[in-house]
Amino acid sequence: MKKIKVAVIGASGYAGLELVRLLVRHPGCELVALGSLEYPGQPVARIFPALAGKVQLSFSDAPPEEIAAQAEVVFTAVPHQAAMGMIPGLLEKGCKVVDFSADFRFRDASVYEKWYQAHTAPELLQEAVYGLPEIHGPKIPGARLVGNPGCYPTCVILGLAPLVKAGLVHLDSLIANCASGVSGAGRQGNLATAFSEVHDTFRAYKVADHRHNPEMEQELSLLAGSKVRLTFSPHLVPMNRGILGTLYAGLVGGPMTEAELFERYRAFYQGQPFVRLMAPGTLPHTGQVRGSNYCDLGFRVDRERGRIIVISAIDNLTKGAAGQAVHNFNLMMGFPETTGLETPPFVP
Amino acid sequence: MKKIKVAVIGASGYAGLELVRLLVRHPGCELVALGSLEYPGQPVARIFPALAGKVQLSFSDAPPEEIAAQAEVVFTAVPHQAAMGMIPGLLEKGCKVVDFSADFRFRDASVYEKWYQAHTAPELLQEAVYGLPEIHGPKIPGARLVGNPGCYPTCVILGLAPLVKAGLVHLDSLIANCASGVSGAGRQGNLATAFSEVHDTFRAYKVADHRHNPEMEQELSLLAGSKVRLTFSPHLVPMNRGILGTLYAGLVGGPMTEAELFERYRAFYQGQPFVRLMAPGTLPHTGQVRGSNYCDLGFRVDRERGRIIVISAIDNLTKGAAGQAVHNFNLMMGFPETTGLETPPFVP
Amino acid sequence: MKKIKVAVIGASGYAGLELVRLLVRHPGCELVALGSLEYPGQPVARIFPALAGKVQLSFSDAPPEEIAAQAEVVFTAVPHQAAMGMIPGLLEKGCKVVDFSADFRFRDASVYEKWYQAHTAPELLQEAVYGLPEIHGPKIPGARLVGNPGCYPTCVILGLAPLVKAGLVHLDSLIANCASGVSGAGRQGNLATAFSEVHDTFRAYKVADHRHNPEMEQELSLLAGSKVRLTFSPHLVPMNRGILGTLYAGLVGGPMTEAELFERYRAFYQGQPFVRLMAPGTLPHTGQVRGSNYCDLGFRVDRERGRIIVISAIDNLTKGAAGQAVHNFNLMMGFPETTGLETPPFVP
Amino acid sequence: MKKIKVAVIGASGYAGLELVRLLVRHPGCELVALGSLEYPGQPVARIFPALAGKVQLSFSDAPPEEIAAQAEVVFTAVPHQAAMGMIPGLLEKGCKVVDFSADFRFRDASVYEKWYQAHTAPELLQEAVYGLPEIHGPKIPGARLVGNPGCYPTCVILGLAPLVKAGLVHLDSLIANCASGVSGAGRQGNLATAFSEVHDTFRAYKVADHRHNPEMEQELSLLAGSKVRLTFSPHLVPMNRGILGTLYAGLVGGPMTEAELFERYRAFYQGQPFVRLMAPGTLPHTGQVRGSNYCDLGFRVDRERGRIIVISAIDNLTKGAAGQAVHNFNLMMGFPETTGLETPPFVP
Repeated sequence: MKKIKVAVIGASGYAGLELVRLLVRHPGCELVALGSLEYPGQPVARIFPALAGKVQLSFSDAPPEEIAAQAEVVFTAVPHQAAMGMIPGLLEKGCKVVDFSADFRFRDASVYEKWYQAHTAPELLQEAVYGLPEIHGPKIPGARLVGNPGCYPTCVILGLAPLVKAGLVHLDSLIANCASGVSGAGRQGNLATAFSEVHDTFRAYKVADHRHNPEMEQELSLLAGSKVRLTFSPHLVPMNRGILGTLYAGLVGGPMTEAELFERYRAFYQGQPFVRLMAPGTLPHTGQVRGSNYCDLGFRVDRERGRIIVISAIDNLTKGAAGQAVHNFNLMMGFPETTGLETPPFVP
Repeated sequence: MKKIKVAVIGASGYAGLELVRLLVRHPGCELVALGSLEYPGQPVARIFPALAGKVQLSFSDAPPEEIAAQAEVVFTAVPHQAAMGMIPGLLEKGCKVVDFSADFRFRDASVYEKWYQAHTAPELLQEAVYGLPEIHGPKIPGARLVGNPGCYPTCVILGLAPLVKAGLVHLDSLIANCASGVSGAGRQGNLATAFSEVHDTFRAYKVADHRHNPEMEQELSLLAGSKVRLTFSPHLVPMNRGILGTLYAGLVGGPMTEAELFERYRAFYQGQPFVRLMAPGTLPHTGQVRGSNYCDLGFRVDRERGRIIVISAIDNLTKGAAGQAVHNFNLMMGFPETTGLETPPFVP
Repeated sequence: MKKIKVAVIGASGYAGLELVRLLVRHPGCELVALGSLEYPGQPVARIFPALAGKVQLSFSDAPPEEIAAQAEVVFTAVPHQAAMGMIPGLLEKGCKVVDFSADFRFRDASVYEKWYQAHTAPELLQEAVYGLPEIHGPKIPGARLVGNPGCYPTCVILGLAPLVKAGLVHLDSLIANCASGVSGAGRQGNLATAFSEVHDTFRAYKVADHRHNPEMEQELSLLAGSKVRLTFSPHLVPMNRGILGTLYAGLVGGPMTEAELFERYRAFYQGQPFVRLMAPGTLPHTGQVRGSNYCDLGFRVDRERGRIIVISAIDNLTKGAAGQAVHNFNLMMGFPETTGLETPPFVP
Repeated sequence: MKKIKVAVIGASGYAGLELVRLLVRHPGCELVALGSLEYPGQPVARIFPALAGKVQLSFSDAPPEEIAAQAEVVFTAVPHQAAMGMIPGLLEKGCKVVDFSADFRFRDASVYEKWYQAHTAPELLQEAVYGLPEIHGPKIPGARLVGNPGCYPTCVILGLAPLVKAGLVHLDSLIANCASGVSGAGRQGNLATAFSEVHDTFRAYKVADHRHNPEMEQELSLLAGSKVRLTFSPHLVPMNRGILGTLYAGLVGGPMTEAELFERYRAFYQGQPFVRLMAPGTLPHTGQVRGSNYCDLGFRVDRERGRIIVISAIDNLTKGAAGQAVHNFNLMMGFPETTGLETPPFVP
């Protein structure tokens, strides 16, 4: 297999670290640079002793352009705003880019600007591809710039796509009640995510006010062909990894059986290697996808109340970030989709 | 303060244990018997070394009637079905009873029988009071038999009562997405609640199929004056204690502000010592009620989508079981409501 | 019961918060001021919603002298160095002081200065009493200034005191292998105690290099009447509260039975309300003392290898900090020792 | 790479499951049978949805001989006693066997019989190789039967081997204070390992009375060339995976520096791919080896007290069980040692 020269900018956060964990075992990848403003010059294996013997590089704080000079593909796992600051330069150097931030996920700059800040590279928004391969797969091989989806949107969009696409549910009835492990908050020392503040506690936050909400609505509206309105409530679970979405939708027309639902989803996700459907009567949990690129889906029909409940489980760092980025990389570079993503989920 | 002779049957489960923890500090209570079929004859403090120096009794497997002979009030913290087998006998002996099971929570035996089994003491259902003091407070002082509410119903009913009572929301729009700590599953050795099966994992279970669903609908329908239909999805959180309800309701009429909602709730729960309302802009979490009898409520209006989200937090073993039972006991015996329940929540 | 006017300086850390939790239920205490430089002017119940309805005060950043003017007793739960800066002034104002820092735990300023920094109030070291009531109880009632012991030293000294006092073990054979919950690191936003860094992980830190080591050796040497050398290895457990000490000592003379050991300890701790001994064959764990002022001790003799292993369990925030401070307060003010400390351990 | 036909008997426990997780990615292995008496006939992926898409087999309860007829190598991950019942038959069928139980770990049947039960295949004890490759590597390639070491012994022996082999420490001074995640207790529904009994709690168990103690002493004595006496205290940590050994030894002769210790270990473990040494000043934790076959070692010298403390970290299911079994398999079959074990540790 050919070896692509790859750099990761922002490699010392949890998503970046997960990406490195995956890339060191990717047969089509040669890591040439790992950027980190936090640990410049320090051996990766000293900061992350888990990687001793696996990564020989030291972290680099070289300017993006310098990093780009060595690499064919750059993964940018840096915060919103920082990403759009460096990506035009990376593209100019001829690199392909998979960006983990929200900067290139929106088609409409005004939506981005309402929830984030002024966009400094709006000319790239039309070119950028929203990197959810199960939905936008055909556009990814030719892309120069992929906006890797948010973790919650990945979970929610995959869970609802077949329903909204087929017009099976009322588009104003959607509710996404989601719960995430703490690694989703990033690798940092905040009181809000300190162990004793989070352990043995369950909380909701940013209810109906989270920046992933417009991202979900953008993609679901595209699928539906008309405006979708979704209430999104994120929660914080005292666990490291995983997102579970409990997704509610009001059925149009009479009730369906769970077997019919299963069949609809089976047809929609035919051939997709990373979506697994649970047999009627069983529901997925986050533990069964830990460390993998799977999105596992289960179904429940509340006949008496005319609602469908879809349960969607992903690992926020893998399918919700780094694993999906590798999937996009595989599609962009012409590798088989599952390359580097074959390791089974980590249980228990 | 007068001392009431009190027995607990089923004192070695988590709810029973929590009750003992509260009663040993209750100034109006003298513990005369602690029943347990699992540890007959064994000193309580040997089985639960936490209680060494606090409880001198040994567990008893004496028949309920024998226990009743010593006690004025009996708490029955035994499984469904076992409760209705012993309670008629306890009442005949002249005891007052607070029952933790579902056996005396339903007004309509047929609803109970649909979700549980044949009812063997249906003649007591009309007499039994549903022991949610904030809703049925006036009926409790005179009661002989109180059906202590389920943990999830306590959380959900208190969270939605002011809305359905005032007709502010569509009665078919209600969704209760709840998450509970693992102690709710009881003190037992099952694979499903083994540490390594639960830790670092989040799951939904019995979605739209949980026995607490009809209990919620019974009480909310009574408040609304017409049939309420509610979709209920429970989840399991890797923590010991706590239930968080994320409760969705579609607004009738135009949007309200969070301050208006707060005001409605303030009026509804006026004078209730165990309901605390969070100021607009803040939401409760389970950690802030741990080990207490509080139900903390917070509010969020999703204006764009015409929905209210209420967050309701309780400790499943305290307000959701043993604390509420003590509250009922206080009302039945004429003690101040908060007697024995004054210890602040346990943080962190 | 008389009401003593009490202030807490440093009330927004975990130890301070635990102290407030205990004092609001203490019948001999009136809280007059809660100092916090972090949240000046903010209502305590807004920062800690768990305390809503329990504490009406706002946090104060008034200078210590001003706080002292209102209070008879001041608890200083501030960092090392800050404590010795304010305590002389508090004493001059006529207050009695229980200090949570290490500043007044050492008899010998040079030991303190080797492990901490220059001591700015060494003239108080001889007067200050090391506030471990089981060891220095008689000196506490008359004390103006009590140096409240460290959490690890409380666990280790109580576990080993009867052995070293009676000369049963080799004084150079002692090893204290301890493990603490994360709240011991304080309420702060550091990467080292971030949830995802600590969860599902167990680590040793500062092995044979922790500042509590000289504190243990000071007290054990006093008991032994000659120099004790102890190797101390702390560990971090992914839990909120609790310290377990696994304490090793080489037996002088022939082997003892566990029953003999038990008897020795029983005699040594006769009349002490907060030391509980486990029957031979059972060992304590941290869960059974959670939230209480107990130190639970269990014994194991390794006959073949001539060693005793003592297991010592405390709650680091209660017996290891705030509960012990209240115990000292009770002794200083002439209250029964257990006042305000009667609530059973919090299980599960 | 040639494909070896492999069967796992006892594939539905945690160690068996971890083995399956590793073998499905092993390029030299073809899984032909997965035995489980618990789930006979059920698809593996139905019981463990994590493995959906990875394992097509159903669990089998076929007799061992029948399974052996299909396989060249059999991993027996069944309880003590059951293993020695089936292994002679497997060997007769011509299979090579890696056994996870204690049945073939001891050289001396009487030691086994003291701690376990009567041995029914003692004639195999001399032939069986103790499968710790770093110590007994040269014997493994030719072995028919490997007794895969216990999890605690792996951690402790690797941590102390260079010291006892070189005569650097007093052989009666050794103490192994170890702490394990809960998966070590196996996949079963016991109250002792129920979530709410273990969570937020730390405990010691079987102190100086654990069956892994004689296993450690056997191997360390072989290395030392004379009788080693070691006190072993296991503890239970509320986490899924990992064992940390905090190992104490009294130095013979004058103190060493940590750099000297490091150098000794470097020389001893030269060329061993799965032992990683931490630079002086740093210590390993269990999180950095999670899911990997690494044993990470760190060093600390307590100069004042003449002791060495070695910290040894492994994943109990991987290096402590299934990973080591694969390592043994690789050596037996002539594969490169690290085949199938290259995935980096799983963080966070």
